[in-house]
Amino acid sequence: MSSSHSDGLSRRFVLGALAAMPALPGLLSASVAEAQTEAPLASWNEGPAKQAILDFIRATTDASSKTFVPREERVATFDQDGTLWVEHPMYTQVVYCLDRVPVVVKEKPKLAGVEPFKTALTGDFEKIAKLSLHDLEVILAATLTGMDVDAFNAEAKAWIDSARDHRWKRLYTELTYQPMQEVLSFFRANGFKTYIVTGGGQDFVRVYSDRVYGIPREQVIGTAGGVKYGYDKNGKPFLTKEPKLLLNDNYAGKPEGIHFMIGRRPQAAFGNSTGDQQMLEYAKAGDGARLAMLVLHDDAAREYAYGPAQGLPDTKVGTFTQALYDEVKKDGWTVISMKDDWKRIFAFE
Amino acid sequence: MSSSHSDGLSRRFVLGALAAMPALPGLLSASVAEAQTEAPLASWNEGPAKQAILDFIRATTDASSKTFVPREERVATFDQDGTLWVEHPMYTQVVYCLDRVPVVVKEKPKLAGVEPFKTALTGDFEKIAKLSLHDLEVILAATLTGMDVDAFNAEAKAWIDSARDHRWKRLYTELTYQPMQEVLSFFRANGFKTYIVTGGGQDFVRVYSDRVYGIPREQVIGTAGGVKYGYDKNGKPFLTKEPKLLLNDNYAGKPEGIHFMIGRRPQAAFGNSTGDQQMLEYAKAGDGARLAMLVLHDDAAREYAYGPAQGLPDTKVGTFTQALYDEVKKDGWTVISMKDDWKRIFAFE
Repeated sequence: MSSSHSDGLSRRFVLGALAAMPALPGLLSASVAEAQTEAPLASWNEGPAKQAILDFIRATTDASSKTFVPREERVATFDQDGTLWVEHPMYTQVVYCLDRVPVVVKEKPKLAGVEPFKTALTGDFEKIAKLSLHDLEVILAATLTGMDVDAFNAEAKAWIDSARDHRWKRLYTELTYQPMQEVLSFFRANGFKTYIVTGGGQDFVRVYSDRVYGIPREQVIGTAGGVKYGYDKNGKPFLTKEPKLLLNDNYAGKPEGIHFMIGRRPQAAFGNSTGDQQMLEYAKAGDGARLAMLVLHDDAAREYAYGPAQGLPDTKVGTFTQALYDEVKKDGWTVISMKDDWKRIFAFE
Repeated sequence: MSSSHSDGLSRRFVLGALAAMPALPGLLSASVAEAQTEAPLASWNEGPAKQAILDFIRATTDASSKTFVPREERVATFDQDGTLWVEHPMYTQVVYCLDRVPVVVKEKPKLAGVEPFKTALTGDFEKIAKLSLHDLEVILAATLTGMDVDAFNAEAKAWIDSARDHRWKRLYTELTYQPMQEVLSFFRANGFKTYIVTGGGQDFVRVYSDRVYGIPREQVIGTAGGVKYGYDKNGKPFLTKEPKLLLNDNYAGKPEGIHFMIGRRPQAAFGNSTGDQQMLEYAKAGDGARLAMLVLHDDAAREYAYGPAQGLPDTKVGTFTQALYDEVKKDGWTVISMKDDWKRIFAFE
C-alpha cells in the first residue's frame, strides 16, 4: 500500500472514509427473489447504462463467448458511499462518530470541555460542519478505536438499527439504491462474487453488509485500522481496535487493497467519485470483457445533485470532476445518470 | 497489527514466512470425490484425534445441536507449513527464493560478487544453512519484491510446477498431507469456508492454493508485503510488489490477520507450532463448540520428527515446545500424532 498508510488516520480516511447503510428486514431477500423471477434490472430505464451491464454479463458468462470468464474467477467490486447508498450531506459513518461523542465523553468526562468534543456535543450541525479536518480525525480516532472489536460491533449495530437520516427520516439502511441492489443480485445470479470496496471503515460496513447487501463480511474491503491481540484478566484473548491505519482504501489504495484481500483483478467495478478512479482503471485494464461504471448524482429532486462534472454543484463529499468525466469518455467507461437511468431510486418509493 | 509490521522484512517474516505446496493435477478432485462418496477421514486411524473432528462437525452442523452454527458463519483456518504440507528441512518458499537468486543476479550482475548472493549462488546447502537471518532477509527482499505482480505470479507458478524436493524427488505440491486434505474436504462438505492462514507469503501460496487445496486465493491469508499502484509508459496500470511488510501472519499476527481479512472468529483452527498458538487460542475462546488441533511431527520414518515437545529433536522450523504442549493439555486442544493418527501421510504412498 502507499507510504502514507502508516501516518495514522490520514486526510483521506476522513474525506473518503465513512459510511454505512442497511435496508428494512426482508428487503434484500425480496430484491434477490425479484432478480431471479422477473427480468433483471427492473428499476432501470432502457438505455446505454442498462445495456452495458446486460452486454457485459452476456460476454463473460455465455460459454460460447470469446471473453467467457470461469465462474470461480468472476469478481465485481462496488464502492459504497454514493454508489450503493446515499452519501450526502455527510458520510453515514461520520454521523455515527458524531453521535458516539457523548458516549466517549461519558467515559472520559474531561473531554466535555475540550475541542473538538465540545463543539460536537452541541449537536449544532452548522458549527460541526466548520470543524477542521484535524478535528474530525480526532473525533474518528476517539469514537472508532480503543475498544474491543466485539464491543464496537455491538455499538455500531445498535446505532445502524435505529438511527435515522434527516431528510427522509428513515433508517440509513433504507437509503440504498434499489437499482444498484438489482445489479448486485444480477451479478451474483450470474456467478460473480460481489465485493464492497469502500473508503469507509471496514469494520463498520461489515456490521450490516450481509443483511443489507447480501455481501458477507469477508467480502467487504474498507479503510481499516489495525487490531491488537491481547488477554483479559482471566487470560481470555480479545482484539482491540487501534488508531493505526493499515489500509487506506481510497484512490490507489483501492486496487492495492483488492490485490491484498482478493488477489484477483475484478472484471467489473462501480464507483461514483475520484476516489474510485484507480479501481475502475485497474478493472478496465485487464484482458477480455470489462465494465467500469460511475454513478452520477444529477437528480436533486429525488436524491442530490453534485459534481462538479457537467456543471453540477461542487462538493467535497463524493467529488466527480470534469477531468474524471473526460477519462470516462476516453477510456470507454459508462456513466449512470440517476435522473435518466433509474426509474426509482429507493425501494420505499 | 503489531507495531513491528512497519519495520521492513522482520525476523518472523523469515523464520515463519515461507512455504508452498500443490498436488498432482487431478489429485485434489479425487480427494474431494472420495470425501463425499466414502466415509470421511479415510486416511485417519480411529482414535481421539479423528473422533474430535467428527464430534466437532456434528456439534456445529446438526440443526438440533445446541452449538449449531449457521452455514454462513462457519469458518475453519489452517496453517500451511507443517500442518498441510512438509516444512522440513526448509520452508518451500525459502527454497524458491534461493532458486531465484541466479535470475536476480542475471538482472543485476554486480550482485554475483556480493554477499549473501555469492554464497547463495554456490548452491552449497551447508554454507547456505549458515547464512544469518539478515542475509536471508536480503535474499527474500531481492527475490520476492520489486517486480510486477503478474510477473511474480508467472515465475512462482513455473517454479512450483517443476521444482522437486530433495528427499522424495517429487513436486512440492505432492507433499501435502493426505489426512489433512481429507479434513479440508470434510469441512467444506459440511458448509465450512476453509482458509489458509500461513506465515508464508500470501502471494506465493495463492499461486497454487486453489489447485492443490481447493482453497481459492481470496481465502489465503499470509504474510504480505505492500503493493504499489502505478502506470507503465503506455498509461496502463500495474501493481508492484514492495519490500514493505503489511501483515506479519505469525503469532498474534494470525488472529489479527483473521480479523482483518475475514472479520469472523473461526470455530476451528489447525496448526503445528508456536506460531499458531494465538490463532488456536482465539478460535478456542469463542462460544459454543470449538476445535483447536496441532499436528505433532513424531514420525521420522515416514516424514520427520521434531519438537522439542515430548523429547523430540529441537528445531527452528516449526517449533513445537513442551510449553505449547502443556497449554494444549490445559486448554483442551487436541494433538494429532502423525505416527499414530495417520494411516498414510501422502497420497502417493
